[in-house]
Amino acid sequence: MANIAIVGAGFMGTAVAYPLADNGHTVRLVGTHLDNEIIESCQQRHFHPKLKRELPPGVKSYFVDDLAEALASVEIIVSGVNSLGVHWFGQTIGPHLKPGQLIIAITKGLEAAANGDLRILPDVLADELPENIRDQVKLAAVGGPCIAGELAGRRQTCVVYGSRDAETVERLAAIFRTSYYHIWTTLDLVGLEVCAALKNAYAMGVGIANGLLEKSGGPDAAGTYMHNLAAGIFGQACTEMSHALQLIGGTPAFAYGLPGAGDLYVTCMGGRTVRLGRLLGMGHTLTEATEMMAGETLESVEIIRTMGAALPNLSARGLVDLKNFPLIQTLADIVIREQRVNLPLNIFFHMVQLANKAV
Amino acid sequence: MANIAIVGAGFMGTAVAYPLADNGHTVRLVGTHLDNEIIESCQQRHFHPKLKRELPPGVKSYFVDDLAEALASVEIIVSGVNSLGVHWFGQTIGPHLKPGQLIIAITKGLEAAANGDLRILPDVLADELPENIRDQVKLAAVGGPCIAGELAGRRQTCVVYGSRDAETVERLAAIFRTSYYHIWTTLDLVGLEVCAALKNAYAMGVGIANGLLEKSGGPDAAGTYMHNLAAGIFGQACTEMSHALQLIGGTPAFAYGLPGAGDLYVTCMGGRTVRLGRLLGMGHTLTEATEMMAGETLESVEIIRTMGAALPNLSARGLVDLKNFPLIQTLADIVIREQRVNLPLNIFFHMVQLANKAV
Repeated sequence: MANIAIVGAGFMGTAVAYPLADNGHTVRLVGTHLDNEIIESCQQRHFHPKLKRELPPGVKSYFVDDLAEALASVEIIVSGVNSLGVHWFGQTIGPHLKPGQLIIAITKGLEAAANGDLRILPDVLADELPENIRDQVKLAAVGGPCIAGELAGRRQTCVVYGSRDAETVERLAAIFRTSYYHIWTTLDLVGLEVCAALKNAYAMGVGIANGLLEKSGGPDAAGTYMHNLAAGIFGQACTEMSHALQLIGGTPAFAYGLPGAGDLYVTCMGGRTVRLGRLLGMGHTLTEATEMMAGETLESVEIIRTMGAALPNLSARGLVDLKNFPLIQTLADIVIREQRVNLPLNIFFHMVQLANKAV
Repeated sequence: MANIAIVGAGFMGTAVAYPLADNGHTVRLVGTHLDNEIIESCQQRHFHPKLKRELPPGVKSYFVDDLAEALASVEIIVSGVNSLGVHWFGQTIGPHLKPGQLIIAITKGLEAAANGDLRILPDVLADELPENIRDQVKLAAVGGPCIAGELAGRRQTCVVYGSRDAETVERLAAIFRTSYYHIWTTLDLVGLEVCAALKNAYAMGVGIANGLLEKSGGPDAAGTYMHNLAAGIFGQACTEMSHALQLIGGTPAFAYGLPGAGDLYVTCMGGRTVRLGRLLGMGHTLTEATEMMAGETLESVEIIRTMGAALPNLSARGLVDLKNFPLIQTLADIVIREQRVNLPLNIFFHMVQLANKAV
């Protein structure tokens, strides 16, 4: 049995405590400075207010001030912070790290260098670690479709763990895997993270259809929705994920597997990302929409901002054909330039025409 | 302006009358022998009872007995029959065909030869046409995400038209395309049809998650569903579509574009295919479930039956690795062998492991 600390007590960080506890591991859940109310509830009532569920038996909760105590003699540290917290996470746990420890991140996102080069968050995290320990710990990350509440509810869930180190990823999978939490493993950490990050951007795009429906007066007299439009956006999204995998260097098949299409599908089924898309589809600007969602972390906005800033630089360097990314550019116009939604459907689906040329 | 006859007055056949009429074409809607009630309503009230919507102005409706009159001097014939009606359609229109006419099929399905070879329905249809006309008409088909009711409601819709003949498919796209009915074109008729057929099979698989949820007592106290499982099945479905495209010979990118992931997404959003999956997920056998849905055409069952019969033959001939198709085989066990649902998740996502070997 292993000792495991989860840093970040939000939805997903806490959710992985359930399979871990079910496997008999010792789990310590550490809130960040944003999680104080959650940890209070966890300590006093053993109840997670966001997941609306009791913590698994045996899981011990810690305020961030007690991080050192929580990290003592752990084999594995789970990064449960969101994409904005990666630098903080690295700086904060760095001084406590011991050689041989494994770090697995549930955080999704990408960062762009000034020249447009895109970097996955585990690499961003590694840069924050003290140099004398950086190469003595192993990093991994999680991808694939997983709504946290369902995992905490012990619903059947299929995910992919990735690490550049085979031993690390197999060890982690063996520790986390249960009868309901099915884990496949990959050495393609980059491809996995590209999909995990981009699916948030594209799910916001799919969510726009809900808002356009509402703006048009909702379902019509015959009871029809705007699923056709949502599905068109979904198809373009998967296609653009495949281009991003090519660009950044990931397994092409991920675009149409668990990490890409699978994770995008689950993200479209509800949650803050599609709610934001809905508000934008209704005609609100990003500023208006995010004010209406005050207090919610919107990772979709971050990843769209990152991609929107990176793509022109990558294009200027001849690394990318912008014709392959009309949807994310449209989303970037909304996020960066505060444009109201106006989907240029006629420049989507460039791939269909490309396929013609190949035939 | 063109004269166009639509044969088959169900949901989708009738739905394409709306963009055609909006473009000012002359549209004749011909019911099959199964559509008599529909045509009665269309003739008497100009109202389509299934679409729950008035026909577009100018569309004229015909009983099947008046087929010859309806087909007189048309440029284009739309096959609006379902996959079970393809042979009938070919035999029935054959004697009326004139050189140069275009036939576009909205029918989705595949047929298998005794040796397992899979054939797209436009080719099955061609075989039914009289030999002296077969090479003098051009065939095309429609793929991509399109719920008929939404098209009839003039909701934004993005589809792909395919034909082996470039002039044919461009002519058809020009005639059908409107400001809300966006049409891309492909010469890869086979790839388009493979996706269009298989998405029905796989959407039934995704629908199973709804039934398993219901069987387990529905959403739990924390309000969680089984979207993770549905998304896992969705990801596996897209992956298997990519294998099928490789097997039969279609554009690989279709698996993660409009014809594959896009069309699968829209099919998962509702309708009879996911309702059948739900009943199966609840624990009913196929016989029980289809009795509960008496009167509804279940094309998903037909395509699963076809694939389930073809795959072992293709495997015996060394043309297919069955490890790449665990989901469709599971669905075939349910459909052909009346097994109750039992998803072997642990043999899914073989692609993730394959990707490892490639890294």
